[in-house]
Amino acid sequence: MEQSPKIAIILSGSGVYDGSEIHESTMTMFAIAKLGGEYQIFAPDMEQHHVINHITGEEMNEKRNVLIESARIARGNIKALSELKVSEYDAVMFPGGFGVAKNLSSFAFDGETCTVIPDVHRVINEAILQSKPIGALCIAPAIIARILGGVKLTIGTDKETAETIERMGGEHINTGHGEVITDQDFKIATTPCYMLDATITDIADGAINVTKAIFEMIN
Amino acid sequence: MEQSPKIAIILSGSGVYDGSEIHESTMTMFAIAKLGGEYQIFAPDMEQHHVINHITGEEMNEKRNVLIESARIARGNIKALSELKVSEYDAVMFPGGFGVAKNLSSFAFDGETCTVIPDVHRVINEAILQSKPIGALCIAPAIIARILGGVKLTIGTDKETAETIERMGGEHINTGHGEVITDQDFKIATTPCYMLDATITDIADGAINVTKAIFEMIN
Repeated sequence: MEQSPKIAIILSGSGVYDGSEIHESTMTMFAIAKLGGEYQIFAPDMEQHHVINHITGEEMNEKRNVLIESARIARGNIKALSELKVSEYDAVMFPGGFGVAKNLSSFAFDGETCTVIPDVHRVINEAILQSKPIGALCIAPAIIARILGGVKLTIGTDKETAETIERMGGEHINTGHGEVITDQDFKIATTPCYMLDATITDIADGAINVTKAIFEMIN
Repeated sequence: MEQSPKIAIILSGSGVYDGSEIHESTMTMFAIAKLGGEYQIFAPDMEQHHVINHITGEEMNEKRNVLIESARIARGNIKALSELKVSEYDAVMFPGGFGVAKNLSSFAFDGETCTVIPDVHRVINEAILQSKPIGALCIAPAIIARILGGVKLTIGTDKETAETIERMGGEHINTGHGEVITDQDFKIATTPCYMLDATITDIADGAINVTKAIFEMIN
């Protein structure tokens, strides 16, 4: 790894309950920059599954677009996921948040029978075929398991989610704050973040550690 | 300073162009936790001035509430600014973003003749009267200058904003990435963050340094 690694970050909105978890997204960007990498942010140009009032947890009578809302985290520097060519990057990273399970896939509603949107499926396939590492935080490993089946990963210690991952063929390993599980065959690195009852410093640790693991797996 | 310092963080929405700057807000929370403090997040329960599409920069035909949108950054753990009693905290911190200049005040539109919303004015007055430090990132120092007049602070190097601050009676000092200006009389600590052409690691540095300065000024 001679040059600065270039990472594609894939967001799913802006806000833990209906989009990307904001701290995980910010800390992923921070970790990549801190460790000497560069990033470009992408998100699908599609309507959010729904809009959640983050105080009450209730659905709001609004429509929002995943790409436009993700641009809030990206400060406007974002591209449509359809434009992402994995060949132009060294790795792909997915911060967590319910957006992964509601917008990028239907995991929040359908569990092990969930669908993953075609552009995310394509990007994960391209990464595997090109031997590019994939990083996934929080709940994001669930969609990796849905696509790849027999892959080793972690979402922390949540029994129900871990069992669902195992029903999709994944091998789930329990982890604590900041810990990372790597699958060296598929080059997948995962860390639990807010799937545990975590503080914001735990999120920073998780993002740094998973990014280090990704950088080590880049050819 | 024997106990863990308790900091009130005041947000103004979620997204740089119409609310709180997300990285600055996240890094302020991170800095406080990393340095051993605790925080509670507040925001005013009011309609945003407007909603900006963060890709195009254009206004969207929507209405959003500052408190509800700020809750996205706070993961739901937020209180109305009207409930903030400064006496229950050791310091107050304002991350930046246009929300400070569009929602917490009219600085973006009225410059040196701007008004500041009553609850922010009250909180700043309480902090001064109780000798509690105030931290302000990015454009947030402008509202401190509007209220206090003769105070020493920085918004980086932007000539027009610096001159406006001086017309409000402030003493502006140019700074680079991560630098902090403190006014020991008023106990104000300021740092430029994204008022400079900054990277996310610069924002982390600025947030850490301004929080250190705040912690040092806590009695």
